[in-house]
Amino acid sequence: MGTEFLKIMDHEDVKNIIKSIPIKKETEKIPLKDAYRRVLAEDIHATIDLPPFNRASRDGYAVKAEDTFGASEDNPVILKCIETVMAGESAKKEVEKGKCIEVSTGAPVPNGADGIVMVEFTENKERNIHVYKSVSFGQYIAAQGSDVSKGDFLLPSGTLLTHDKIGVLAAIGIGEINVFKKPKVAVISTGNEIVEYDEELEYGKVYDINSQTIANAVKSCGCAPIYSGTAKDDYEHLKNSIEQHLDADVIVTSGGTSAGAGDVLRAVVDDIGEVFVHGVAVKPGKPTLIGMIGDKPIFGLPGYPAAALIVFHVFMAPYLRKMASMKSYRKSDILKLKISRRYHSSRGRHQYVLVKIEDDIAHPILKDSGAITAIAEADGYFEIPKNVEIIQEGSEIEVILLEGS
Amino acid sequence: MGTEFLKIMDHEDVKNIIKSIPIKKETEKIPLKDAYRRVLAEDIHATIDLPPFNRASRDGYAVKAEDTFGASEDNPVILKCIETVMAGESAKKEVEKGKCIEVSTGAPVPNGADGIVMVEFTENKERNIHVYKSVSFGQYIAAQGSDVSKGDFLLPSGTLLTHDKIGVLAAIGIGEINVFKKPKVAVISTGNEIVEYDEELEYGKVYDINSQTIANAVKSCGCAPIYSGTAKDDYEHLKNSIEQHLDADVIVTSGGTSAGAGDVLRAVVDDIGEVFVHGVAVKPGKPTLIGMIGDKPIFGLPGYPAAALIVFHVFMAPYLRKMASMKSYRKSDILKLKISRRYHSSRGRHQYVLVKIEDDIAHPILKDSGAITAIAEADGYFEIPKNVEIIQEGSEIEVILLEGS
Repeated sequence: MGTEFLKIMDHEDVKNIIKSIPIKKETEKIPLKDAYRRVLAEDIHATIDLPPFNRASRDGYAVKAEDTFGASEDNPVILKCIETVMAGESAKKEVEKGKCIEVSTGAPVPNGADGIVMVEFTENKERNIHVYKSVSFGQYIAAQGSDVSKGDFLLPSGTLLTHDKIGVLAAIGIGEINVFKKPKVAVISTGNEIVEYDEELEYGKVYDINSQTIANAVKSCGCAPIYSGTAKDDYEHLKNSIEQHLDADVIVTSGGTSAGAGDVLRAVVDDIGEVFVHGVAVKPGKPTLIGMIGDKPIFGLPGYPAAALIVFHVFMAPYLRKMASMKSYRKSDILKLKISRRYHSSRGRHQYVLVKIEDDIAHPILKDSGAITAIAEADGYFEIPKNVEIIQEGSEIEVILLEGS
Repeated sequence: MGTEFLKIMDHEDVKNIIKSIPIKKETEKIPLKDAYRRVLAEDIHATIDLPPFNRASRDGYAVKAEDTFGASEDNPVILKCIETVMAGESAKKEVEKGKCIEVSTGAPVPNGADGIVMVEFTENKERNIHVYKSVSFGQYIAAQGSDVSKGDFLLPSGTLLTHDKIGVLAAIGIGEINVFKKPKVAVISTGNEIVEYDEELEYGKVYDINSQTIANAVKSCGCAPIYSGTAKDDYEHLKNSIEQHLDADVIVTSGGTSAGAGDVLRAVVDDIGEVFVHGVAVKPGKPTLIGMIGDKPIFGLPGYPAAALIVFHVFMAPYLRKMASMKSYRKSDILKLKISRRYHSSRGRHQYVLVKIEDDIAHPILKDSGAITAIAEADGYFEIPKNVEIIQEGSEIEVILLEGS
């Protein structure tokens, strides 16, 4: 009854198969103000110098430096102030020997000046400026192009546009930017027992959990989910549902993958595409299915929520992140923590165990993958290789966080 | 000329002043499908049992356990299969002595049965099921309410709704949820030299960087920015601009805070509100201003982009995160790294230094806070207390990440 697993594969082999699935990237042009956490799809070179002009970096007086040589508290140099230039303005006059122009921070340095004396070291006596400290050449002047020269390489394609990097683009006056399109992921929950939240929960039915969990996990990978409803565990119904969503870039289903009664995903993908993986030597997640329909990858996750979540994180998230040009997990998403108790693993399967973190201790969640409370409590998970049977209490484990705050 | 600083304060005193600013929280009801990374504003108790019925957790046969006692490979028990129940269906018949009902994973356990024998340990000979292994009471049955009982406490108010926690809400059929409203933050760049990206960059002008950097940093704190344009360094103009945005929950300006020519923010806030802080013993960020206008806090950040960014992170982000009910930095946002070179700090000011991280080594960025390349390269920053003058090469420092990938 039902289809047999294709061949139980090791998780590393499955990861390699997934890595070999080709990825097609498309780009789109969007306004910079909408670019937060999008991924740059072009190399950015400076189109202007920064600063765009010689800029005063202190409030004070623009001078000829040599005019101030030898100035001290006891022996001020006196310069005639001939103009005041605020930030955003430009001087009409030039600084000549014996003269100075008052400038505020950010103002362009007037022609003829080659240094700024800070206002703190001066006294203004009826526009005769007493300078109590000598100024060196170039002091407090940020020269045009000294930060960035026109043509300089600023940000590479593939940069995640966090708030700081968006500032860099704003600095050179960019209003629109090429970013990678967010891959569209169709999310389908299968099972005759699944109902949506606005339906009546008849005897034998359960609410659809995985559509929400997986659709939002898809968002966490920089992709855009398409809520594609629930499909019956029925060949024609599931086939139609999948075929309707082949305009997405990836399809993910949950449920309907076990090698038992009423499991039809394998049959559908066998018929309209190709199954690469069906059955993985992991716990949970054994019935995972991976295939292609045309050029669209399809991931069949287990039906149990905790199993679906873990298989998503282990196998699918790295693929989606690569597709969305997001980095895979960063170091800071992996914590080295001590385990609160001895943990026995299952023989012969690579195991993933959800944990709750309290006071920097990882507490394994001892619930089956059908338990929603496992997900309610979980902060992350750790892995146990298939040849390890016991993790001793207090051992250090690497916990991969599900999603941070 | 210009206003003097109020009184230079220590950064810890400033943090305490910020902590004392009252926070008003409002809630709104939204569809669960829009709840990703919002913050729950109600305690969630289970409205149903989970599982909602006694559920088979394996494909197999629902039996009376005692019928199978003593069954073995050599000595099977034979039970008459009287019905098949798939997930989502319910049995019409009851399991009586000597009989069994075929069930698939997720199906409700028929009345009369108290255990499931896995299909792997059976053989079906014309509906006479040969059972090769005994079943214990309750085996492979997830009893109604065993995961969650109606009324159980599931998630506390304040939970960040990551994909996994949204799954928990979906499990009990929640379609709408109360979340905290995203605080609205009006972002104003000040300075006569500032132009927007679609304006011409005349001599002496620079593009507006801070509006973009700060608005997106506001997003990273779970708040909603209101792009409020640029304001001139002019009392009436800035006052009007601020007064127009008093419908926001917080106002943030950048620029116009130095105690020098053309700096008017202090004067405006003095007149229409109250200034708590103007001048902080930090580098960069000395001219930072903090005050209230009515019941709205206003933060005046320095104009230089790197300074604005750091002051935002150090002083403003913790306040916004608290307001948005987001956690402050998580542990994983702070990395312990070795510093690549000796670093001299300024005396008498608590210092923040941007760093670039390469191969787990933190490289201090040796540029002034007007340099946009400092931001282009920065991954995070570290702090140097005011009484520390030198950090030796290779010392371990704590780097706070600006924003992760």
